[in-house]
Amino acid sequence: MAAMNKQVLLANRPTGWVQESDFRIVDSPMPVPREGEMLIRTLFLSLDPYMRGRMSAARSYATPVDIGAVMTGGTVGEVIDSKHPDYKRGDIVVGYVGWQQYGVSDGRGLRKITPGPVPLGAYLGTVGMPGVTAWIGLLDIGQPKPGETVVVSAASGAVGSTVGQLAKIKGCRAVGIAGGKAKCDYVVNELGFDACVDYKAAAFERDLAAATPDGIDVYFENVGGAVSDAVLPRLNNFARIPLCGLIAQYNATEPHPIPDARPFLSKRIKLQGFICSDTMERWPDALDQLGRWVAEGRIKYRETIADGLENAPRAFIGMLKGENFGKQLVKVA
Amino acid sequence: MAAMNKQVLLANRPTGWVQESDFRIVDSPMPVPREGEMLIRTLFLSLDPYMRGRMSAARSYATPVDIGAVMTGGTVGEVIDSKHPDYKRGDIVVGYVGWQQYGVSDGRGLRKITPGPVPLGAYLGTVGMPGVTAWIGLLDIGQPKPGETVVVSAASGAVGSTVGQLAKIKGCRAVGIAGGKAKCDYVVNELGFDACVDYKAAAFERDLAAATPDGIDVYFENVGGAVSDAVLPRLNNFARIPLCGLIAQYNATEPHPIPDARPFLSKRIKLQGFICSDTMERWPDALDQLGRWVAEGRIKYRETIADGLENAPRAFIGMLKGENFGKQLVKVA
Repeated sequence: MAAMNKQVLLANRPTGWVQESDFRIVDSPMPVPREGEMLIRTLFLSLDPYMRGRMSAARSYATPVDIGAVMTGGTVGEVIDSKHPDYKRGDIVVGYVGWQQYGVSDGRGLRKITPGPVPLGAYLGTVGMPGVTAWIGLLDIGQPKPGETVVVSAASGAVGSTVGQLAKIKGCRAVGIAGGKAKCDYVVNELGFDACVDYKAAAFERDLAAATPDGIDVYFENVGGAVSDAVLPRLNNFARIPLCGLIAQYNATEPHPIPDARPFLSKRIKLQGFICSDTMERWPDALDQLGRWVAEGRIKYRETIADGLENAPRAFIGMLKGENFGKQLVKVA
Repeated sequence: MAAMNKQVLLANRPTGWVQESDFRIVDSPMPVPREGEMLIRTLFLSLDPYMRGRMSAARSYATPVDIGAVMTGGTVGEVIDSKHPDYKRGDIVVGYVGWQQYGVSDGRGLRKITPGPVPLGAYLGTVGMPGVTAWIGLLDIGQPKPGETVVVSAASGAVGSTVGQLAKIKGCRAVGIAGGKAKCDYVVNELGFDACVDYKAAAFERDLAAATPDGIDVYFENVGGAVSDAVLPRLNNFARIPLCGLIAQYNATEPHPIPDARPFLSKRIKLQGFICSDTMERWPDALDQLGRWVAEGRIKYRETIADGLENAPRAFIGMLKGENFGKQLVKVA
């Protein structure tokens, strides 16, 4: 019996919260590489909030996944068969094989990894797309200056944890916002943020004020919604808002407005949406530096790893609800 | 009988629309310059939307005018008595004497003008603060590229008219938004914009779409409110919004929200509030270039001139309602 390729397909476009029934798991024939291609076995699949956008047909920065197509996703994989001159069996590659056990690639968008002190999963987190996202958003758009206060939401996540630790390296006060005491304790005690505020606590707004006595100079926005509403009044003159994500709104059927435009004028606030793939020229430096800091233990992270591709849909839905702790991965093989 | 100094004082902090009764006109004793000071007679007083903010006690970028104090305002004046080594009787100076016939200055914030091809009133408009505001907002924040579409609201006003003409000089498609056919005709036929849309017309949104077939790359925001709501959906990826003013909201008692944050992320839009006095280092170049373009007739403008200081309150209220045409001045002497 020939080996099969387990895949997770998009079955329906969700309205509101994603359901497991929006996905379909199938066993497909094994793909076969042609000349100039290679066959990759997925080791780890990355689950990221941006994938919620790909499930919708709404106009966005990326083409939506078609109904019946394999869900897109970043992966770390192993080359198990190669007809590509630059790759050989056993090479470890980071790329976008998607939510499936095996995939074929012609090398485009692929990055070869030399196994070393950086754990493989990190190439989907702090030393991968989320880390570069933190780097570009904080350093290029946020432009933090020593002594300033940087606040980041989803602070224990793959992007947020990197943002806060980069802010500390830059000499800033780093304040996280996360859901629950366990995540907040981790952000302060293990990641070294100066403070972390629990957005699920009744005293959230008061706690945020106490954690930002000098106001907020950079708000790295990952969530939107009510968290954002609480942050905006605390912004200082000339504050910058790198707008990276709005996870609280991805499953909303109604938009969540920004309550008032006037403070953006009176305080000369900059709000700028960005996507890490718009500035590919920044990736090599960022990955190089982040890789060294992770190897040295100067930047830390945590992972939640779901076991088996069939559990990817449930893990993805949990991540959208904040049930993961740190970077959400799926161990596929 | 000694000469008196007519002044317009702030009598009340308005809530909602400004009333003439929010001002009080008084005759005060003539100020006397001390050593190192000079006495200036106001020739022209500038009326600008930002003054509405100074009438409120709300936290803003500038200290509010105190109740009972002279309203602040830019002026062109003539030195009529000088105990300052750098100024002599007859010098023409641009500065901030305020809403009064005479004022004393020690020279700080004052700029000496050499009368020439640029009419005096222009130093309060295109070759003054509003012109520099257009320059900084469009060129530094908007960063227009040839072939892009620049839309500016309040297009026949002092700032807006300069924005559109600078956009044309930069090789862009310039589209104005103004109130009424007369202003729109002027913006296209005299100022040379490619199109101008009447926000008071029933077909405003359809007209705006027709005038911006390739979408909008830079939206120079002067007004906010419903005009802004119509513009936002037409922004292209990587659009920039220099946020200069929100005149539609200055007299509002309720905030006008930005309806949805998500397009700022998906389209990577930049929104940035700014005030021209934050970047004083840009003024000399801007004023020099704008002065030459006005002298050459390459940048045009229109003025509405109220006659006599006692008519300043009415003219100011009219300007907030869009009743002026071009730069609103008061001829004081």
